[in-house]
Amino acid sequence: MNHWPDNLKKLVNLFSRLPGLGQKTAERLVFYLLEQAPQFNQELGSTIAEINNVIKKCSRCGNWTEQNLCSICRNKERQQHIIAVVAETQDIAALEKAGEFLGVYHVLGNYLNPIEGVNPEQLHIKKLLERINEQKVQEIILALNPTIEGETTALYLTKILKKYINIKITRLARGLPQGSDLEYADEITLANAFKGRTVI
Amino acid sequence: MNHWPDNLKKLVNLFSRLPGLGQKTAERLVFYLLEQAPQFNQELGSTIAEINNVIKKCSRCGNWTEQNLCSICRNKERQQHIIAVVAETQDIAALEKAGEFLGVYHVLGNYLNPIEGVNPEQLHIKKLLERINEQKVQEIILALNPTIEGETTALYLTKILKKYINIKITRLARGLPQGSDLEYADEITLANAFKGRTVI
Repeated sequence: MNHWPDNLKKLVNLFSRLPGLGQKTAERLVFYLLEQAPQFNQELGSTIAEINNVIKKCSRCGNWTEQNLCSICRNKERQQHIIAVVAETQDIAALEKAGEFLGVYHVLGNYLNPIEGVNPEQLHIKKLLERINEQKVQEIILALNPTIEGETTALYLTKILKKYINIKITRLARGLPQGSDLEYADEITLANAFKGRTVI
Repeated sequence: MNHWPDNLKKLVNLFSRLPGLGQKTAERLVFYLLEQAPQFNQELGSTIAEINNVIKKCSRCGNWTEQNLCSICRNKERQQHIIAVVAETQDIAALEKAGEFLGVYHVLGNYLNPIEGVNPEQLHIKKLLERINEQKVQEIILALNPTIEGETTALYLTKILKKYINIKITRLARGLPQGSDLEYADEITLANAFKGRTVI
């Protein structure tokens, strides 16, 4: 809007560059902030401005941390010999919510996607192999999305990891999601549910 | 998430207090910011932190500005004797987009709503009366929402403004919105469209 002060336009513009925020949402956020107490905006603003200085990637697994190692790698109760390989740090949050896994993680940073220019060199695979050599790793769980990119990445990793004959390589089970309806399940999910059926 | 660093949790928490942003959206925004260059976060952060220092309310109309008067009040081509009364600063943006109005604005700050504790004293009505006395105001357009709060506010203002017998008091036309379908229009809109019918 032409009649808006420059800093209002600037902030709307910055907000609208964030994922999932359109022009309208960005405007609503800025008008909301303008009505807030300066303390709130100063706290929000300085936290954002400083975020890259205080939060770094864990030097071992790539998860976000304020120290050298992340809280999961530091946790002595976690099984350091079982590594779940994930594509992105956000995946760790999802898996931790399930509360089922007691090992540690390794973040690749992305999915393999040669068409979009994501090649193996861009993933943190070298670091994973170093961990395998240093720690006594017994199992690698490929906790990747059941998508084409996920399958491609899993296939590539499996090929590399096969040479470590003492390490068990697994992937997350495929099947019907909890609370779903057979009638609406897609064919691949149903086929996977048959293939992976378990004795009760 | 328990395994997250404190500043990550803090920023998710701050973001989730913004309107329309839930926990999940706040998390996605923070993870996005973590991957951005520090320059972007510093620019976004410092703009937010400083916003209350650089953007103030126009001393005349209440619109946002970086100077004493907003760009509309400063604009010599705008008709200072026609004032459109709006409830919130965002409404100015919507009306300016239409490009039809060449007068100036007055922001009340809210709609009258005694049930939720918004009384006449909390609206910038006194300032409006001062402007009427100082400027040679010829017309006041009540550009308020066609809602119960809008009607209540308009009724209250009309009662006060009636004593200025030289000032024309108008409100925005009611009728069918452009591109709408008669079949789906509600009764009040259709009744208003009949009442306000114009000769062609």
